[in-house]
Amino acid sequence: MSEITLGRFFFERLHQLQVDTVFGLPGDFNLSLLDKIYEIDGMRWAGNANELNAGYAADGYARVNPNGLAALVSTFGVGELSLTNAIAGSYSEHVGIINLVGVPSCSAQAKQLLLHHTLGNGDFTVFHRMFKNISQTTAFIADINSAPGEIDRCIRDAYIYQRPVYIGLPSNLVDMKIPKSLLDNKIDLSLHPNDPESQEEVIATTEKLISEAKDPIILVDACAIRHQCKKEVAELIEATQFPVFTTPMGKSSVDESNPRFGGVYVGSLSRPDVKEAVENADLILSVGALLSDFNTGSFSYAYKTRNVVEFHSDYTKIRQATFPGVQMKEALQALLKTVKSAIDPKYVPAPVPQQKLINSPAPPSTPLTQEYLWTKVSSWFQEGDIIITETGTSAFGIVQSRFPKNSIGISQVLWGSIGYTTGATCGAAMAAQEIDPKKRVILFIGDGSLQLTVQEISTMCKWECNNTYLFVLNNDGYTIERLIHGEKAQYNDIQPWNNLQLLPLFNAKDYETKRVATVGELNDLFANKAFAIPDKIRMVEVMLPVMDAPSNLVAQAKLSEKVNAEQ
Amino acid sequence: MSEITLGRFFFERLHQLQVDTVFGLPGDFNLSLLDKIYEIDGMRWAGNANELNAGYAADGYARVNPNGLAALVSTFGVGELSLTNAIAGSYSEHVGIINLVGVPSCSAQAKQLLLHHTLGNGDFTVFHRMFKNISQTTAFIADINSAPGEIDRCIRDAYIYQRPVYIGLPSNLVDMKIPKSLLDNKIDLSLHPNDPESQEEVIATTEKLISEAKDPIILVDACAIRHQCKKEVAELIEATQFPVFTTPMGKSSVDESNPRFGGVYVGSLSRPDVKEAVENADLILSVGALLSDFNTGSFSYAYKTRNVVEFHSDYTKIRQATFPGVQMKEALQALLKTVKSAIDPKYVPAPVPQQKLINSPAPPSTPLTQEYLWTKVSSWFQEGDIIITETGTSAFGIVQSRFPKNSIGISQVLWGSIGYTTGATCGAAMAAQEIDPKKRVILFIGDGSLQLTVQEISTMCKWECNNTYLFVLNNDGYTIERLIHGEKAQYNDIQPWNNLQLLPLFNAKDYETKRVATVGELNDLFANKAFAIPDKIRMVEVMLPVMDAPSNLVAQAKLSEKVNAEQ
Repeated sequence: MSEITLGRFFFERLHQLQVDTVFGLPGDFNLSLLDKIYEIDGMRWAGNANELNAGYAADGYARVNPNGLAALVSTFGVGELSLTNAIAGSYSEHVGIINLVGVPSCSAQAKQLLLHHTLGNGDFTVFHRMFKNISQTTAFIADINSAPGEIDRCIRDAYIYQRPVYIGLPSNLVDMKIPKSLLDNKIDLSLHPNDPESQEEVIATTEKLISEAKDPIILVDACAIRHQCKKEVAELIEATQFPVFTTPMGKSSVDESNPRFGGVYVGSLSRPDVKEAVENADLILSVGALLSDFNTGSFSYAYKTRNVVEFHSDYTKIRQATFPGVQMKEALQALLKTVKSAIDPKYVPAPVPQQKLINSPAPPSTPLTQEYLWTKVSSWFQEGDIIITETGTSAFGIVQSRFPKNSIGISQVLWGSIGYTTGATCGAAMAAQEIDPKKRVILFIGDGSLQLTVQEISTMCKWECNNTYLFVLNNDGYTIERLIHGEKAQYNDIQPWNNLQLLPLFNAKDYETKRVATVGELNDLFANKAFAIPDKIRMVEVMLPVMDAPSNLVAQAKLSEKVNAEQ
Repeated sequence: MSEITLGRFFFERLHQLQVDTVFGLPGDFNLSLLDKIYEIDGMRWAGNANELNAGYAADGYARVNPNGLAALVSTFGVGELSLTNAIAGSYSEHVGIINLVGVPSCSAQAKQLLLHHTLGNGDFTVFHRMFKNISQTTAFIADINSAPGEIDRCIRDAYIYQRPVYIGLPSNLVDMKIPKSLLDNKIDLSLHPNDPESQEEVIATTEKLISEAKDPIILVDACAIRHQCKKEVAELIEATQFPVFTTPMGKSSVDESNPRFGGVYVGSLSRPDVKEAVENADLILSVGALLSDFNTGSFSYAYKTRNVVEFHSDYTKIRQATFPGVQMKEALQALLKTVKSAIDPKYVPAPVPQQKLINSPAPPSTPLTQEYLWTKVSSWFQEGDIIITETGTSAFGIVQSRFPKNSIGISQVLWGSIGYTTGATCGAAMAAQEIDPKKRVILFIGDGSLQLTVQEISTMCKWECNNTYLFVLNNDGYTIERLIHGEKAQYNDIQPWNNLQLLPLFNAKDYETKRVATVGELNDLFANKAFAIPDKIRMVEVMLPVMDAPSNLVAQAKLSEKVNAEQ
């Protein structure tokens, strides 16, 4: 009987799911495991600059990967603990991460040896216990017989729930043999079917509400993307012709060039015409909602209707009635079969708000502003772009830009960890390389946030991610925090860096750097056809005034300070 | 009655303990708190480049601070979780850290708002629960009345146990007022007195063993440093004239220029003469032992004597008898009163092993080796130096060098987190600035480790830490791991950087960079008197062969791979 090592089995399972890049750092409890990656054609070990960045990179990769999955390998204690922030972020934002940790051998654990990378108290389960708080499920593998099943169970849960899973793998098990035939049965990724009676009731009630609605709309949020319902959403828009809106986290869930797209709804921070269109609707079909403060303008939703149908990954809610287990993917597919006939034949598709996407003319020497940048950039985006925005002025600014067809938007609106996007860009760029080398990956990050995770640009240089555009918004410190509290406070200042020296320092092979400070310079850059072709790593430093910010951020900051001070 | 804010109270408490630099990053749940630092003369907010680095910096600061303490402020979720690795390291290595986290207001918690920086499930205690695993004690403050007492309790425990403590402080409490008079009673830092009867028995038994010993020695380890027993140890050497040895973690616990200093004992990895002297002793007075694998040559201690007296911070052990609660500081002080009279009058102080500290002559063009470097560097060290060595070739190499008087050695031998020392150097340099601006802070770090935490050099530039020497050992990747497993493996390679461009990139004000690759270049550098004066930030890139390593590391690596593979 043909056999393979357990280590190879793990990576073969990833390979079957098109997870072909593995993120992380080597460490003495995972070295033998890493050898196995190189046995599989088409797989690669990213070798990140540090673990937190590796975690962010995995999160970015998963958001681009066709199965919404990514894998991480780290080492016991010192490696894995540096991942907690990234893993909690993936948990919070529903991203499927397979987080494998190389742990000491079973015998070292049994003897409670006072090994390095431990707390010195013989407790080998403490880090696993910590990760249970931020993982969908975990496995701390202790013997070879249960290992393949445990690995499969964790990978399946990462996919189904789109959340991180934790696997602790002792170093002595990775070279043990198991039957190769275990690979023949692919991991079952099918969702549990919805209960037919519950689903029937959901469809019937929803269609009744649709048939009675005068001003129905569709509102799409993050979980529609994570749980891979973009196709169903597109078909729903096509079938109903209802106006469609997204939340900030739901941006890129729908084709924004579709004439039925009305804009981004953020409660009281929305554009007035968007706010009016959403809040005056008499029926809202909500798909994949994740109603956090930054996603809702600090909970300032003000629907006038009580007719809301919420489709979630694990339940459906219609007005006040909850239907546990009625999952959105299957429910939407069922609804699509009959929804057309439910619409009142006299329904005339309502006009949708139109956004002005052209800047007022300004002399070329006019200093750049956030307002100008976020409007202008819409015209430079191309079909298929991956657009990544850091928490701060970028994540708020991007809300007012328009995304092209088939784009992917990445922003950590709920978890909001500063520095996330440099890592995420590395992961997204490596995923894009696997899908289409012509796909562009475009990062917008502030000069303050860049400092937290800057060394991941080195990993992009190593892998020649010539598909990346790194726009560094230099506004001299933490502008988002200056808006919340402490405009002039020293704690919101940063040490200024010569950012354009980064790519040569990291030994980038093909690269280009630019600095733009005026309207004219930005217009020239975006008019330059060579610049638009993704054939080198590019960094553009965008000089902006310290207190300049998108208007929705200014309003959000005021709401945030109030919440923080409330007793 | 005069009142102060709770936020100011916290920082005044730190100031009373000479904790005058606070490490961390701003975040929206701690901004109002940070305002209060600037109200106190002589205090400063470090403003680190990221949280993990801030945690490492706090650890380095605490190891230099007169009370062995440091303070950190981070923000809920995204900030604090990036600290877990650093805090676990401080826990493992017995370092006193006051880890304060700014958390959402009490009312936001009570309403279970779906705030950013949460897991999106309304659970506000999850991160606190995670930190309980790696903290001596914790407080999640919920009202103003108990807050001052809880803060004092945590600070006291950080000092007494020399371990991290966690304080969660809601944003709405920091501006509330409490009586200023609370500051008049200083925090009681006195140790609980030892039980007199137990201590008497310890002293009597120890003195009996001393009186019978022919070849007694003293062996000093890390906890002697952490629990501030260096003075007692020095007096014990003076009074007894017994040969004294340290472990790797105990390096700098004793004056190595003392003629009674015999060297560093690391079990089977020791120099043969040191091994013989320690293992043939008929009595070992062991102070502050922390017997981890890297500290003991993978547990290869081979004492021939059963006469070991172990002084620990919370108990004493004589042969097989444990005396709980007999703490070393008081016990050593008691022993010192009478120990001289216990020594056999015929005892002749045994000769101690002598180490060769001069390199064999070599032509100036000879390529540098680790062996040459670690011997040569002893002659360049000066009294009072703080010498920091990264896990890897540096932490092993430094064992064979000799430290000057009043030096402080910093190395994370037990926790061993790669990248630790760049952060620790920032913290140690800021602590040194507060003690004596002429004190030099000297880092040895590999090119691989440097990449994990490089941005903390920017913080050193911001604070003009012109007392720092950054020796970057460029051996093209993770040499320590190549020795354990995968000499040619791609996962042990790194992206090469132009390291000497770092200081200008970070806008260092006064700086100097050098590259040395030969024996002659190193000798010239160390002969240059101007170079020895700490008046600018310096980086020296030391070019070394890929597989060149200190001999004790080569031996340790073989033992490590064996332990990892054992079933």
